[in-house]
This record gives sequence, C-alpha cells and structure tokens, in this order.
Amino acid sequence: MKRLLVVSAHAADFVWRAGGAIALAVAQGGEALVVALSYGERGESGELWKEPGQTLERVKTIREAEARRAAEVLGAGFVGLDLGDYPLRVGEEALWRLVDILVDFAPDVLITHTPKDPFNPDHPVAYEAAEKARQLASGAGVASAFRTIRPPEFWLFEPHQPELCGFVPNLFLDITPVWEKKRAAMEVFASQAYLVRYYSERAEHRANHARRISGFKDIERAEAFQRVLPQVLRAL
Amino acid sequence: MKRLLVVSAHAADFVWRAGGAIALAVAQGGEALVVALSYGERGESGELWKEPGQTLERVKTIREAEARRAAEVLGAGFVGLDLGDYPLRVGEEALWRLVDILVDFAPDVLITHTPKDPFNPDHPVAYEAAEKARQLASGAGVASAFRTIRPPEFWLFEPHQPELCGFVPNLFLDITPVWEKKRAAMEVFASQAYLVRYYSERAEHRANHARRISGFKDIERAEAFQRVLPQVLRAL
Amino acid sequence: MKRLLVVSAHAADFVWRAGGAIALAVAQGGEALVVALSYGERGESGELWKEPGQTLERVKTIREAEARRAAEVLGAGFVGLDLGDYPLRVGEEALWRLVDILVDFAPDVLITHTPKDPFNPDHPVAYEAAEKARQLASGAGVASAFRTIRPPEFWLFEPHQPELCGFVPNLFLDITPVWEKKRAAMEVFASQAYLVRYYSERAEHRANHARRISGFKDIERAEAFQRVLPQVLRAL
Amino acid sequence: MKRLLVVSAHAADFVWRAGGAIALAVAQGGEALVVALSYGERGESGELWKEPGQTLERVKTIREAEARRAAEVLGAGFVGLDLGDYPLRVGEEALWRLVDILVDFAPDVLITHTPKDPFNPDHPVAYEAAEKARQLASGAGVASAFRTIRPPEFWLFEPHQPELCGFVPNLFLDITPVWEKKRAAMEVFASQAYLVRYYSERAEHRANHARRISGFKDIERAEAFQRVLPQVLRAL
Amino acid sequence: MKRLLVVSAHAADFVWRAGGAIALAVAQGGEALVVALSYGERGESGELWKEPGQTLERVKTIREAEARRAAEVLGAGFVGLDLGDYPLRVGEEALWRLVDILVDFAPDVLITHTPKDPFNPDHPVAYEAAEKARQLASGAGVASAFRTIRPPEFWLFEPHQPELCGFVPNLFLDITPVWEKKRAAMEVFASQAYLVRYYSERAEHRANHARRISGFKDIERAEAFQRVLPQVLRAL
Amino acid sequence: MKRLLVVSAHAADFVWRAGGAIALAVAQGGEALVVALSYGERGESGELWKEPGQTLERVKTIREAEARRAAEVLGAGFVGLDLGDYPLRVGEEALWRLVDILVDFAPDVLITHTPKDPFNPDHPVAYEAAEKARQLASGAGVASAFRTIRPPEFWLFEPHQPELCGFVPNLFLDITPVWEKKRAAMEVFASQAYLVRYYSERAEHRANHARRISGFKDIERAEAFQRVLPQVLRAL
Repeated sequence: MKRLLVVSAHAADFVWRAGGAIALAVAQGGEALVVALSYGERGESGELWKEPGQTLERVKTIREAEARRAAEVLGAGFVGLDLGDYPLRVGEEALWRLVDILVDFAPDVLITHTPKDPFNPDHPVAYEAAEKARQLASGAGVASAFRTIRPPEFWLFEPHQPELCGFVPNLFLDITPVWEKKRAAMEVFASQAYLVRYYSERAEHRANHARRISGFKDIERAEAFQRVLPQVLRAL
Repeated sequence: MKRLLVVSAHAADFVWRAGGAIALAVAQGGEALVVALSYGERGESGELWKEPGQTLERVKTIREAEARRAAEVLGAGFVGLDLGDYPLRVGEEALWRLVDILVDFAPDVLITHTPKDPFNPDHPVAYEAAEKARQLASGAGVASAFRTIRPPEFWLFEPHQPELCGFVPNLFLDITPVWEKKRAAMEVFASQAYLVRYYSERAEHRANHARRISGFKDIERAEAFQRVLPQVLRAL
Repeated sequence: MKRLLVVSAHAADFVWRAGGAIALAVAQGGEALVVALSYGERGESGELWKEPGQTLERVKTIREAEARRAAEVLGAGFVGLDLGDYPLRVGEEALWRLVDILVDFAPDVLITHTPKDPFNPDHPVAYEAAEKARQLASGAGVASAFRTIRPPEFWLFEPHQPELCGFVPNLFLDITPVWEKKRAAMEVFASQAYLVRYYSERAEHRANHARRISGFKDIERAEAFQRVLPQVLRAL
Repeated sequence: MKRLLVVSAHAADFVWRAGGAIALAVAQGGEALVVALSYGERGESGELWKEPGQTLERVKTIREAEARRAAEVLGAGFVGLDLGDYPLRVGEEALWRLVDILVDFAPDVLITHTPKDPFNPDHPVAYEAAEKARQLASGAGVASAFRTIRPPEFWLFEPHQPELCGFVPNLFLDITPVWEKKRAAMEVFASQAYLVRYYSERAEHRANHARRISGFKDIERAEAFQRVLPQVLRAL
Repeated sequence: MKRLLVVSAHAADFVWRAGGAIALAVAQGGEALVVALSYGERGESGELWKEPGQTLERVKTIREAEARRAAEVLGAGFVGLDLGDYPLRVGEEALWRLVDILVDFAPDVLITHTPKDPFNPDHPVAYEAAEKARQLASGAGVASAFRTIRPPEFWLFEPHQPELCGFVPNLFLDITPVWEKKRAAMEVFASQAYLVRYYSERAEHRANHARRISGFKDIERAEAFQRVLPQVLRAL
Repeated sequence: MKRLLVVSAHAADFVWRAGGAIALAVAQGGEALVVALSYGERGESGELWKEPGQTLERVKTIREAEARRAAEVLGAGFVGLDLGDYPLRVGEEALWRLVDILVDFAPDVLITHTPKDPFNPDHPVAYEAAEKARQLASGAGVASAFRTIRPPEFWLFEPHQPELCGFVPNLFLDITPVWEKKRAAMEVFASQAYLVRYYSERAEHRANHARRISGFKDIERAEAFQRVLPQVLRAL
C-alpha cells in the first residue's frame, strides 16, 4: 500500500511516463497524487491553438479538464499549480506550496522529470523544484521548527529521448496488470494519437528489456525509471 | 528465500564486504555459496609469511581453513578454485568451472568486486570472470544447446576506497538482525584485527547513511552494494 | 559514393542495427561489406536447436546462408570468419585477417558494436577487434613498413538496451528511402518475428527523435549511431 | 549556404573561437550574425583600464567598435546586447530579445560557450541563455501560439582550457581557405597580441588533429567544436 | 605559511570536514578564516528546538557562539553572514560581500562544499557562491577596474555521503599532529555526540586510505579533499 | 630529490610528453629512468622506412640509439624491453621484468600513457602494464613473500589529442628552468621537426594555463599531467 506523488511540468507528462506506476499503486491499495506545475498551455497544446480565436484561458481550462480526467481514470488525485510554461518558473512561494503538498500527502515515492533535457526548457525546472521541495520536506531533522515527513524514494520517469537526457534506468516496473488503465488514460488525450502509439510500443520494448534482465517471461508491458538515491533494503 | 552466490578474488574478501548479506540470506531461509578464486596466499597473507620457513602450500591450507570456517559461521557453502593470486588469472577452463557452479547453484543474486580498483590487480579480474560467467550461464536463450538459468541480479560489494574504484552505492542492506554473525565471521581472521574494527565502524556509517536516506530509525548496521543492472519490479 | 564496412559479432546483428545504413550506402552508388566474426551458432540460434538431432555444423550452415541472403537483399558483400561464439575470441591471426580485409576494402565508414554490453559477452570483443584492426590498418603513418588506408569514420550501431550499454547517439540516419529493403532483409530471419517488429518500431521512434532534432518532417524511419571520433568538416 | 548565429558572452570571444567558422559560412555564400551579450568591459578590457581617467562608457564604446570591425572583417553582422559583465546576468527580458533574434535570423547553426568554465563566471551564463532561447524559439511545436523556427544545430566552441571545461570536440572544421580572414579579424584586437599567437598555433594543432583523424593531408588550420545534439543525416 | 579560507553553508560544517586543515594551517604559522553563510538555525539545530519557547533569534545566537568558539579552538577567525538556511539564498549583495572578504583575506586555499548534494538544499548554493566569488575576486586581470588577488587553490571538503555527491578525493591531508585540536573543536558541539564519533572514525579510515596510497605508515588521522583545479607545481 | 620512472610504449614518447619532468627531477638532484617497452620500429619510424633496403633490425638499432641519447641529454637512464609494436603485447614474463625494474629503482613518481587512446593501439597496453606492475611491486603488504617498495605516485602524461583520450590534467609542472634541456632532447629526433615545434608551442600553452590557474606570472613553459591517485599531503 504505497503512496505515490508525481510532479509533472505540464498537464499530460504524468500519463505517458508514469501512468502505469500510478495505476499499479492504486491497484495495490495505495494512493496517488499528481501535481502539474503548469498546464502546458503554450508549449504542449499545439492542436488547441489551431482553433480560430483561441485564448490562453480556454486552453488552460481544456488541458486542466483533460489532465484531471486522465488522473481519475488512473485512480489518482490531481492538483494544478498553474505556474505558466515555456518557460516554467518556480518561485519561492510556489516552492513552499509544493513542500506543503509533500508534507500533507507524505508519499513513499516521489517521481519527476530528469534534471537534464535538451528538448524542453521546463523539465529541468520541474526536477529542481521537486528535489528542493523533497529536501525541505524531509531532509532536516528539526521536529519543532517545521513539520517533516519520512524521506520518500526519489525516481525519474523516462524522458522522450533517454540517452540525450542522461537517463540510465535502474528500475523497470511491470505494469502488465494495469495496462488497460494506462491505455484508457492515454486515450483521454485523443488528439495526441501518435503519443498513444509511441508509449504503447515503448511499454512493450521496456517489457522486452525487463524480461531479458529478470527472466520473468510473463511481463508484457513495463515502465522504466531511474532511482536517484540508493534503495534501503531490510531483507534480500 | 533467496539463493546468494558470492565470487571473491581472495579467501577473505567475502567476509568483510558481504558477510551481512550472506547471513541475512540464510536467516531468511535462503542458501548462500562462496566461491574464492584464490586463497590470497601471496598478496593478502602478510602475517603468515612472517613465520620462519613458511611455505606457499601451508599458507594456502591455513587460508582455506579460515575461509571455510568463516563461511560456516555465516551459514554458507565454500568452494576454493585455487587459481593463484598477485596476479590472479582466470583462463578458459576456470571460466567454465565458474559457469557450471552458477548453473548448478542457480542463484537469485550474484555478488562480486568492482570492475575498477587501483589498489588491487586481482579484483577487476574477478569482476570480469563473474560477469562473463553470468552472461554465459544465463544470457543466451538456447535451451537445447546448453543449460541456462534465470539471470541472477548482479551486485558489486563495497571496495576499500569506494570513490577511487568508481563505486556508487545504489542499495543499502540492513544487516542489524545478523550483525553478531558477521562479527563472529570476521573474528575468524583474528590476525587482521584492524579490519574487524574498520568494517564494524563502516557498518555503522552505512547504517547512518541508510537511516538518513530512508528514515528507518532502527537500522544499526548496514552494508552498501551497487546493483549493476536495473531492478525489475512487479509491484511498487 | 561511400564504402561501408560492418563488423558484426554474430550472423544477424548487422541487419537489425545497420541494415538501413547498408542499403542507403548502396542506393547512393556506394559499396558495403559485412564481416561476421561468428555465426551466433550457440548463443543466438535458439530456434534451430529445438530440432531433434541438430548439430553445430548444421546450425552454422543455416545461419551462414541466412546472413548471406540478408546481405544480398541489402546489396552488400558478406564474409564469415567463423571464430565461434559464447564466448567469441579474436586471436592474433584473426585480428590480422580483419586488418587485411580493412586494407583491401578501404572503407569510408566502419561500424560495429558498443564497447560495453552487460547482456552479451561477445559484443565488446567485436568492438575491441574492430578498433584495433582500424588502428593497425590506418593509424600508423609508415608507408613502406606496411600498407595503410585513409582512416575510416568509426561508428557504433544501436545496442538492444542503449542506456545500459552507455550508448549515446550523436547521429541519426534517415533511412526512409530504403526502408523496404531493410524490412525485406529482416524478414529473411523469419523465425525471429519478434525482432522484425521490435526494430521496425524502433526505426519509427528514432525517426520521431530525428524529426524533433532536425525539424525535417518527412523522416519516417531512422537508425541511430554513435560516432566515436570527431567528424572533420571541410564546409559548414 | 548556411546561416550561422554566434552567441558570445563578451565582445571578442567569437573571433578567437569561431572566426573561421564565420568566415567559412560567408565564403560558402551563407550569412553570419554575432550577438555579444556584453562588451567585456570589466573583465576582459585590462589594457584599456590602464589609461588614466578611463570610464566604463568609454571602454564599452571602444570594445563595441573593435568587435563590430572584427565581425565586418569576417563578413558577419553584429549585435551588442550590453547586459554587463563580471558577472553577466541574463534576465527574462534579455532572454526574449535573444529569442526574437533567433526567430528573425533563423540560423542553421547556433554556436556558443561551454556550460562549464571554472575560469569565467560569464561563459556558463551565456550557454544557459543560448540553450533556453534555442528551445523557446524552436522546441515547441505550437505554430499559432508563437512563431517558431526549424531547430538549428547547437555547437560549443573551444574554451581556453578545454579539458577543465569538460569540452570534448566531436567536430573539426577545416578553415584553411579562410585563414587569412580569421587572422585579420584577430589582429583588430591588436592589444591582445598574445591571443593572436595562441589561437594561431591552436589552429595549426587542431589541423594536425584533424589530419590524423581524417587522413586529409591538406588541412592546415582547423577549429574544434562540440555538437551538443545528434546530427541528422539523410545520406551516408 | 598558508592562508586558508573556508566557506561553510551552516555554522558547524567547517569543523567536521575541514577542522584538521584549519588547525594544520595555523600550526604551520599560517592563518585561517571561516565564513558561515548561515547559522543552520532551521535545518541543523534540532536539539535546540526541543526547548519549549525557543525562538529563531535565540537559536542563531547560540549557534553563532558555538561556531565562534570552535573556530577559536582551531585558531581561526570567524565571520557569520546570517543569510538564512533551508533554503539558503545568496543574492547579488551577499555575493559581493563574499568577494570583498576574499580580496581582503587573499587566501592561498579556498575550501567549500560539493556542487551536488542530494541530502542538503544549501550545500550546492554555498558551492556556487564560493565559486563565483573566487572567479570575481581573481579571475579577471583588470587591475584598475577592480581589486584582484592571486587565485587561491579551490578544494571541496568531504560530504556526508561522498559517492552520492560525486565526491572523488584527489588529496588526503595528514592531520595527525593537530588531531587533538580538531577533537576539541568538535566537542564544542557536545550535543552532537554522534557526529564527533563519526568524524573521528572517518579520520582514521581516511588515514588508512592515505597510508595505503602513500606508504607513510605514521599517518593516524587524515581528511579527504577534492581539488577542483589542477595543481601548479614548480618542482617535482 | 625525487626518483622518477617513465614507462614509454615506444622509443620517443617520453621526450615529448615528460622530458621536462625528467630534466627537472635531475636538476633537483633526483634520478630518472626511462623504460621503453618497444622501439616503435613499425608504427613510429616512418621516415626511416623510406630508405631503400631498410630492415627491422636496423630501424630498431637507430631508434634505440636516438632514445638513449635523448635520455642522456635529460640526465636519465634508459632501458629498452624490445617487446615489439603495432601491436605491443606485454606477456607475463615482460610484466615481471617491469616489476623487477620498479622494485630495484623504487621511484617516487611513475609516469605513463593514458588508459584510453583512439589513435594508438599500444598506449593503453603500456598503461595496463605499468598499472599492474605498480600494484604488484607495491600494493601488497607481504614483506616476506616478495620484495615491495613504497607505492610511487602514478601520473599520466599528455596524449596527442587530450580530450579524445579522456585526459583531464590535474597537475601542471613548471619546466621553465629546464626548458633548454627538453628542447635539446627533442632535437635528437631531428627528423620529426614538426613534433619539436608542436610540443614547444604546447609547453607555452600549458604555461599560459598554469599562469592563469596559479597567478605565478613567471611560468614560461609547462607540462600537463593527470595524477591517477589522490595525493597525500603532510602539510597544507
């Protein structure tokens, strides 16, 4: 029964890259929460802007609704911080809102973007905010000075061009049992049909990798992650 | 109930660096086997050579007996391949003996030295042999051509000067429950009192690291490892 | 009109990973030659070994024929060195045969495996042989002591699990115009239907990456490579 | 016929490090534009400050004139953003000016400093601004929301102490045909005679490297660059 | 007779990590100065906050007094910049104060935190400030525009979990002769008994490493550092 | 009064890359010894092979004489192991000869090639032999089993294309006082006039780097090295 928090730079990132992890956490009886720092209204809403007379507010409303619906399909809560995108900026106040969310939700696992991404100005900003918030929420041991939580595991999800983002997976998650949920969540973003297909194939490829590493022949879909910190085991 | 195989360049390496992991595997109802490629008769038996009239054969006999006793204390089997040390050489025949051991024992986890060690000519040789043997025992999927096993996890144990060996731990193992066993095994090598103390303190330091990472406040001793391949998870 | 030499550890590697590059070189009026160091008779011929009474010689004959046919489809020559696999060993004599092939063929581009591959004991051996042969064939400037050629470009093709092999592509090749040739060559290895699909999807993903990097919207299939040495340009 | 944009932290950086590339682009019928973020009035104008009664404004005026003249010699346009140096700061407004310049000029190649430089506080700032501007100008696919251009190639030019800046060249450019232009441009900065000599010798060394890599024996002067993103090729 | 400047993110960092270097500099007839950017009043004063009715001002006063006393024991001067912690922010004004301190003190060696630390939000901020200040104080050669000093050596001291901070020591300092001074300085922070023991053991471990590297058998305590820049030697 | 041992893959490597260090060691009253593993008779004697009727033996004799003379000019002893080049192979017996030389000479500093060099098949072989010999000569503490020496410092000298060999200097040596000796030693290899000029200019560039790092304005020539192991200091 794990608690999972996903910090997403834009409205849809969490679906493609961690939708399986979210659905699995929920299927295991756990709880999941998605925080979208922005709605991707400028940089990732190309289709919507083709409509004549489109406005920033309307784009944000549509993206927010889609993201919320996708989170629902996966069984997760959703919070949008509406900080703006391209470029995303996370100021002191927004950082402390993120800290508060972390302390209130007290996740076992925190997932976000890679610290490097040559294709996106906002992903590294999201990483930095998530890292700092995690440190502030848990790193200091001063019970009376500020509320703290047990430090969550810290994972990166798979970027679009892994090698160029310095992403080296050290964890594959078998999402076979919840695949249909992830597929349904991806289909909420119907206009991005290409991505549905891309991440469906990717899930099969990662499953192939996972089978080869582990020998578990029944893995059919998987997601790749990079654990930033060492894992602490209490049994082999 | 995990099966654990440790490939050690010299007779005592496995005790200092993976003694806790071995004892824990056994305590959990699993099985452990230690393969020592050499007895460390030249490079790691300084005290014994101070005796006048000492011979290579006698040194090997003593080291073999100590290593076997230490393995016994931890609850593990012990096999010595007697390939010679300083420098250790693993030829084609020795490699296939290692493959056979792997296939017969079918471990869940394989542990050995780091591929780089500026202080020891034999440790990288042991790594290379263990890696190749693991690939030959499990990597190929040709059922009828040669026997294969499910690929074991592949871990590196902590070298003496971690940073200079490129060792970056991504796994801390809580060995608190089996600490007395590790201590007893280390004390078999009574003449190396310094190492007993060094690795006792190290276990506490790694526990401190593990507590800080995980928030589990009752970890008192830990061992550090680096998992070479991604982990494949079937649940969060 | 480029001359392309591909050094493949096993019989089929060149098809999945550089089939497009080969077909493109030929389509541009160039010439391509494949050197297979082994036939992959032990490690990569699982299906064939399922036949009762199968023999090593027969497996090698079948694999050799398939590889030759696939090379033909792509328009390339084919040489098998039959050095044995799992593990592949390239001795002094074999190395000099490779040097001779390089000097005779005088390629503009030499392509082989990554120097690191945790999933395959033979790929790094092929890399090392190709690198040494390239250096011996071209690196020294002693015209009268031994024949030399102009140093070819040195590329790595894409391994199965790129990040874990330390593969970071710095070159995407648009293989859209020759895609049908690559597909046909892959289909020679009919028994490995899964790989046909895997590398077909991969070609689309790499095309997606290449489009995003370059903005060339008509790239539909691509292959990824890593150039080992700097490129020398004579015009921007 | 390539369009080349060079982003220089201070007034003269572009001459020493990319003067050949600029002259070559122009000689090939292309177009080049230099953007200097500052005039290097504090940190790189030591000689000028030796004059009694010197003022900041006068130093900037002199440096601006020199840089403009050097750009002219190379055949390039010149824009100075006058953001101040030691330390250079690029705020939101300046970033968008840079984006506008990129969108208006639509370069094929964008060249700037390395992201790391232990000897200069301003070079990494210039890198970061150029990277973000490039992403904002081209990375997002939202045609109607903001104007975008085809993503230019992204190159780093050679820093003064390459290894300590993490610079690993993957591209050498033969500037033999335009060497006299580069030399003339360098001589505009007559007071820095040492640098003229240093970069003249460097051009010969890099030519030596390029000859050794390529076998092209007629390269006499070269510049080294590091391409940040993979190259997308449409032919071998 | 070396002059040593230590930039510490919080009040006590310098004692655990560079106390020996400070005492040694002083014992050799040199001079040492500690700059604490904050007092660690929020993140590193857990014990103090257990007192009922505790206030931020009181915590800072106590920490400042302890740090000053510890510096005194080591023979160093102490300056507290009181910039606040968790998170520490170093603005333009604070940066220039640091530059002024550097220029006034003119150290031979500057020591600070690692640029990466997954366990602490403030350590990388301290690194960045120290690096920029060092560059501004010494990097530019403009005598008349601003005062400059001879560039000090730049060292990183040992973080709590070295490998995870990317710390690779390239310098061990034998602190045997001043060990009692370091011990006494650590004991000023009596409430942190655990750290006293941890860093005492660490000093012995590093001495063990140093003995093994150098063969100097009389080293009993050592500190590890990473020199950021090459050393310039005038004799072997 | 330092003892310096240089292991050179071919006859002339030591002059270009460590001639200054050798001359400096001698000038300080120390002693220097050069071990050439081969004479570079195949790969680095291009000029000599242009003579009609040239033979391998004659080339080796000439190269041996030149190398010996150059060593003499620098004040160093010279030993040629004549192991052959292109490719160089260091077998078990040759390794033990190198160990014996190390134990007999007991150097304070050991210098050799980088472990990686894409332009030369022999340099990494020389590195590996030097590293193993150093470990065997000093790494083990077994006084009675085999003679050992105090572990020498381990340095890499500058390769021809530093960045491509992964060379990152962490040590610059001021060779101004012995420059004339290095120049004279280089001139022994008169036929390689280009290299004399290249390494003369390089010495000035490295001096420029060293001045900028250290502020010592009187450094006119320098050599760059990379210390492989941490330095152990007994005073700041």
